[in-house]
Amino acid sequence: MNDAPEIGVGMLGYAFMGKAHSNAYRKIAYLTWPPPMVPRLVAICGRDERAVAEAARRYGYERAATDWRSLVADDRVQLFDNGGPNDLHAEPTIAAAEAGKHVVCEKPLGRTAGESHEIWRRVERSGVHHLCAFNYRFVPAVRLAREMLEAGELGEIYHFRGRYLQEWIADPAFPKVWRLDRAAAGSGALGDLGSHVIDLARYLVGEVTSVAGVTRTFVEDREGGHVDVDDAVEAVVEFENRAVGTIEASRFCPGRKNAMAFEINGSKGSIEFELERLNELQVNLTGSTPGDRAQGFRTVLVTEANHPFMEHWWPPGHIIGWEHTFVHELHHLLSCIAAGSPVAPHGATFEDGYRTTEICDAILRSAESGRREAVTYRSTA
Amino acid sequence: MNDAPEIGVGMLGYAFMGKAHSNAYRKIAYLTWPPPMVPRLVAICGRDERAVAEAARRYGYERAATDWRSLVADDRVQLFDNGGPNDLHAEPTIAAAEAGKHVVCEKPLGRTAGESHEIWRRVERSGVHHLCAFNYRFVPAVRLAREMLEAGELGEIYHFRGRYLQEWIADPAFPKVWRLDRAAAGSGALGDLGSHVIDLARYLVGEVTSVAGVTRTFVEDREGGHVDVDDAVEAVVEFENRAVGTIEASRFCPGRKNAMAFEINGSKGSIEFELERLNELQVNLTGSTPGDRAQGFRTVLVTEANHPFMEHWWPPGHIIGWEHTFVHELHHLLSCIAAGSPVAPHGATFEDGYRTTEICDAILRSAESGRREAVTYRSTA
Amino acid sequence: MNDAPEIGVGMLGYAFMGKAHSNAYRKIAYLTWPPPMVPRLVAICGRDERAVAEAARRYGYERAATDWRSLVADDRVQLFDNGGPNDLHAEPTIAAAEAGKHVVCEKPLGRTAGESHEIWRRVERSGVHHLCAFNYRFVPAVRLAREMLEAGELGEIYHFRGRYLQEWIADPAFPKVWRLDRAAAGSGALGDLGSHVIDLARYLVGEVTSVAGVTRTFVEDREGGHVDVDDAVEAVVEFENRAVGTIEASRFCPGRKNAMAFEINGSKGSIEFELERLNELQVNLTGSTPGDRAQGFRTVLVTEANHPFMEHWWPPGHIIGWEHTFVHELHHLLSCIAAGSPVAPHGATFEDGYRTTEICDAILRSAESGRREAVTYRSTA
Amino acid sequence: MNDAPEIGVGMLGYAFMGKAHSNAYRKIAYLTWPPPMVPRLVAICGRDERAVAEAARRYGYERAATDWRSLVADDRVQLFDNGGPNDLHAEPTIAAAEAGKHVVCEKPLGRTAGESHEIWRRVERSGVHHLCAFNYRFVPAVRLAREMLEAGELGEIYHFRGRYLQEWIADPAFPKVWRLDRAAAGSGALGDLGSHVIDLARYLVGEVTSVAGVTRTFVEDREGGHVDVDDAVEAVVEFENRAVGTIEASRFCPGRKNAMAFEINGSKGSIEFELERLNELQVNLTGSTPGDRAQGFRTVLVTEANHPFMEHWWPPGHIIGWEHTFVHELHHLLSCIAAGSPVAPHGATFEDGYRTTEICDAILRSAESGRREAVTYRSTA
Repeated sequence: MNDAPEIGVGMLGYAFMGKAHSNAYRKIAYLTWPPPMVPRLVAICGRDERAVAEAARRYGYERAATDWRSLVADDRVQLFDNGGPNDLHAEPTIAAAEAGKHVVCEKPLGRTAGESHEIWRRVERSGVHHLCAFNYRFVPAVRLAREMLEAGELGEIYHFRGRYLQEWIADPAFPKVWRLDRAAAGSGALGDLGSHVIDLARYLVGEVTSVAGVTRTFVEDREGGHVDVDDAVEAVVEFENRAVGTIEASRFCPGRKNAMAFEINGSKGSIEFELERLNELQVNLTGSTPGDRAQGFRTVLVTEANHPFMEHWWPPGHIIGWEHTFVHELHHLLSCIAAGSPVAPHGATFEDGYRTTEICDAILRSAESGRREAVTYRSTA
Repeated sequence: MNDAPEIGVGMLGYAFMGKAHSNAYRKIAYLTWPPPMVPRLVAICGRDERAVAEAARRYGYERAATDWRSLVADDRVQLFDNGGPNDLHAEPTIAAAEAGKHVVCEKPLGRTAGESHEIWRRVERSGVHHLCAFNYRFVPAVRLAREMLEAGELGEIYHFRGRYLQEWIADPAFPKVWRLDRAAAGSGALGDLGSHVIDLARYLVGEVTSVAGVTRTFVEDREGGHVDVDDAVEAVVEFENRAVGTIEASRFCPGRKNAMAFEINGSKGSIEFELERLNELQVNLTGSTPGDRAQGFRTVLVTEANHPFMEHWWPPGHIIGWEHTFVHELHHLLSCIAAGSPVAPHGATFEDGYRTTEICDAILRSAESGRREAVTYRSTA
Repeated sequence: MNDAPEIGVGMLGYAFMGKAHSNAYRKIAYLTWPPPMVPRLVAICGRDERAVAEAARRYGYERAATDWRSLVADDRVQLFDNGGPNDLHAEPTIAAAEAGKHVVCEKPLGRTAGESHEIWRRVERSGVHHLCAFNYRFVPAVRLAREMLEAGELGEIYHFRGRYLQEWIADPAFPKVWRLDRAAAGSGALGDLGSHVIDLARYLVGEVTSVAGVTRTFVEDREGGHVDVDDAVEAVVEFENRAVGTIEASRFCPGRKNAMAFEINGSKGSIEFELERLNELQVNLTGSTPGDRAQGFRTVLVTEANHPFMEHWWPPGHIIGWEHTFVHELHHLLSCIAAGSPVAPHGATFEDGYRTTEICDAILRSAESGRREAVTYRSTA
Repeated sequence: MNDAPEIGVGMLGYAFMGKAHSNAYRKIAYLTWPPPMVPRLVAICGRDERAVAEAARRYGYERAATDWRSLVADDRVQLFDNGGPNDLHAEPTIAAAEAGKHVVCEKPLGRTAGESHEIWRRVERSGVHHLCAFNYRFVPAVRLAREMLEAGELGEIYHFRGRYLQEWIADPAFPKVWRLDRAAAGSGALGDLGSHVIDLARYLVGEVTSVAGVTRTFVEDREGGHVDVDDAVEAVVEFENRAVGTIEASRFCPGRKNAMAFEINGSKGSIEFELERLNELQVNLTGSTPGDRAQGFRTVLVTEANHPFMEHWWPPGHIIGWEHTFVHELHHLLSCIAAGSPVAPHGATFEDGYRTTEICDAILRSAESGRREAVTYRSTA
């Protein structure tokens, strides 16, 4: 039965990510049973007083705030969840950690590798648990892929090709929003979409050692101002284990709604994944049965009882949705906090968040310099 | 803001359907915003005292009960939700309605058309709102299909072919469970799976006027007893509007996890749907642009802002899961209760539940008699 | 090297089937190497003198004729291939066989079971080789399915669901052509399309013992006259081995160009096939590896060196087209003739052609009578 | 009727490409009707005397030869078709052209840009028709894509991502063949597979201006020697029209048989193509009907009467195969020769062949130098 301890949550942001995270906290309490800890929704913070008050009522937070410092100052908040815009990642997250709160921060961790490193370094030093919210690690099909890769079922890895395509600014009449502003967002499609692909590349294949890329801003002037971030990025990557591949991100792909996809080829087989069909994993296994004439990519519906995370949900074939990735992710974090165990390797730590931004920055440097750029990673020392 | 009235819920059943419905009630309160009514989880009922107590703790019901009569007797319960086995549909549901509570009942409504008619007749007479939980009407893609059909976008309808295939008892070693027992379940694949297909046939195409079918019980003796229901059913159907088609249900289809699918062909186009990819609708429109060389089935990802139910969820391309059909369905019911408006046509009423069982019974009669059987429907008079 | 004997071919029909068969004869000579026999294109026959003369020039026939009797009378013709309309199947085919020529006849063999039986009986008695041109048996994926089924790889068979959908007369403005005339064609979608499905059901699953069906003529009056055949047919079927399923055919399915598809479920697995992707077979094998988490339908691209018929063609992944089914089929026939070996079981004989029409007729009887009709088959005695 | 002039063909090579081209010449004579010219199969040439003699018998060439010079010297040969290995492209092709024969040469044109330029320059100067056999331009779906792009149906182009993946040398036990030898082949996956993708990028999107790439040789030592070509290549490309994208080629992708695929995104829509389903084109059109809720990628089965090349084949839905691309391509060449019209833009000329190798060489230079390499093209001056 449920004798799980409570953990007080302070949430920064009430829009897209605030909604997704709040929903996850509420669901953990009764759908992951028994829960590792029971989230107590202490406070939610946002700039618009009226809107944040409504969000508090809506999601059940005990209070609303317009200054994140009040969350940091609140002793009942033990977990600070930063779902704010990118330019509000560093200061509140560091402050919360240094006040002894566990921290979650949305991706990208910082707007640059330098900022990300600073966040990681200071939070790491504070000794709290930290999670960078790369939620696609918590798609059941992605976790299954990881487990197959770790078990060597695909053999030696040769290729990773990943892309994240959307269409929402292909229309030149779409206005300039904060995601199209370098000061606020750091980069464009690269940090917003590409960072997910990069994180999965690292999670599934291994460390990236070099990149060569180009970027484009197809529509430079929009209602609301000049766009100074990338609309699209194309890159070639090399991995530590000799695998090679491509990473692409664009918001200029009509018909692609939320089309993150990747393919991995190894000496024993291949897998393919598409986020718009997130319950499926395409798996080809070269197989140990010579003469078997029924080889091919299998559409694995990742909803079986023995599939990752499925103990929380429904019978086979009853698919889950995008929102459930957050349930899995935050459930993992609470389990780690409860057990005092590390967030890595399945959860992305702030080190992972930092390393991803090193790769992003190297791609931007390469786009500028025209050179293949080696990626080097700093420690917290 | 949320000034919605509360409505007290009494839930019968805590397993599969109990979990799905409870989850929906909890989510309505904050994801459909503002909610039409706020569900108050008053009581949950089940046979196993210990298990039902845990379920109450888990889902947040105020109390647990082992006798459904205590829910009927509880004044705080205003909505009685029957997610129990089929042989427990009639008596509690009728009693609750006659005690003035609105009622939800899982499908099939009764084990036979006679039992279903009795439930409908008495509940209808009591004047409460009633909903038979054919949740697939509340898949966004299915609602979109309905709206396209109603708007005439597919023209005159020629065909409906629907099937619901699963694999879970294909293994002869699988034991006899209540769903394989006629006294408890009424029928086998037909009532459990086929009834969903029949309900959608009626919802999308129109009334069924005749059926001709066969049934099979492939494995008659299982651990735990003799199987006296159908493992599979195959039927030809005729509709009032002259359309013809097939309805199939089977639990003997390896690789088919939860494979409900249908195709509808009309004079202006066709649609196709598969439940395992429930966010997608395949749409072919013959088109008003002669000479257009890019005709074909479109994979419509039903997650756009202007798609049904999507005002509750996420940006385009962020898919929802099976559980959300219950959120939509019960949200609809609460909206109807709050507004005093009818549950039909989008929600399945007990009349729909009854009519579906008339069709099921006609298929069983046809399987027995070898004749095409006309389907006739009774009123409550 | 090629020391294969020649075989003189007389072709009746120069349009759709005449083109497809002529192409096959020409290709057998150099693509199936060494060929079992080398087709010599002796004569082609059709009603339009000018058109048939051009066809002879085009395909390389030595002469053109407007009376099929001249082909029967021609000693150089050793193989008579009847690609004419259905009402021209019986007399020329029987005459050719009784003149000692091997015979190919397009499907359906006759317009009724009675006519088909007469063709079969007399041709069989004449002792020549006979083939009813159910070419889809010669799709590599279909042959692979047959070989898997014969080897027991799918276990005991539970279900066959097959359909053949087209769209070409969904437009009411489409005129009445011979295929919509009972006297010329025998039946509509049933004999033209449904017969293919029925033949595959028999080839893959086994003998059909009963049927129950309905038919529809959606557009009864067209330019050119009254339509007196079915536009669509829906049927439930039972097989000798207890399997059950459905067979459907319609020309009223917008978006379905040449959509023959079937699914077979057995105790050990399932397969699925679609003619519009004829190089692929979907295969689900329940598998002998418990715990394997990568189960699912495999998209088998049937172009490997060890796949049926692929010794004639290209490296893996280089797909073949619809026309090649005729190359395989007629190559099989010539091999049988050369070796004096039987056309069955892989080639459809006239007995298969006859039995298919018994099933078609039973479906029509059932549509009329409203009863499930047992199918009984006559011998040639 | 067919009063088409004959054209004498001399074929170099009798294996894979020799078979594919010979088949096409034979089919042009009767399937493209009336044919623009009637190919007369004069001579076929190869190194193995016995094998080439059999090939001549098989395909119907009047004579066999083991020295290509005898074809060049043969006055009856008016069209010289070079399907030999890459190191036999330059000398015979130039000699044939300088002897006044029209020339076809398999891709890649030369092993290096320098060699390719020399071939182009000298052949161009000789005044004959020349075609570099990039047959995928002649896939109906690819031509349809080109026509849609030319008509502006996709708007301004933003992205091209193309890849050609195979699996045949993923097994380290596979021996070293000529395609893995730099002296014979020039490069590995790049020239063999990547060149097809590059040609389509140019044909569909426009001229390439820069590339940045990496290559890998995963298995360097094989039975038969050291592999000195690339097993895989990954590249980022920029186009003259500002579009950006990726080009990839690999022979180390288990499960990918002949998986050439590309996606193009433009301001008004997107298309996607996969060679293993070569009869299909995926088309998304943003559309001129605001509010239309049935948007999505359409699976266009490119077999309609008004689709490219379909006048030669079958009714809608009856798919064609890989071999037919050669029929279309050589039919186009013969039409151009007959009419005295240019091979470009639909046929790839030797200039196209040369430019493709400039891009290949630039990718190899970039892989070596670590720099993005501008691509510059020489004229024949």
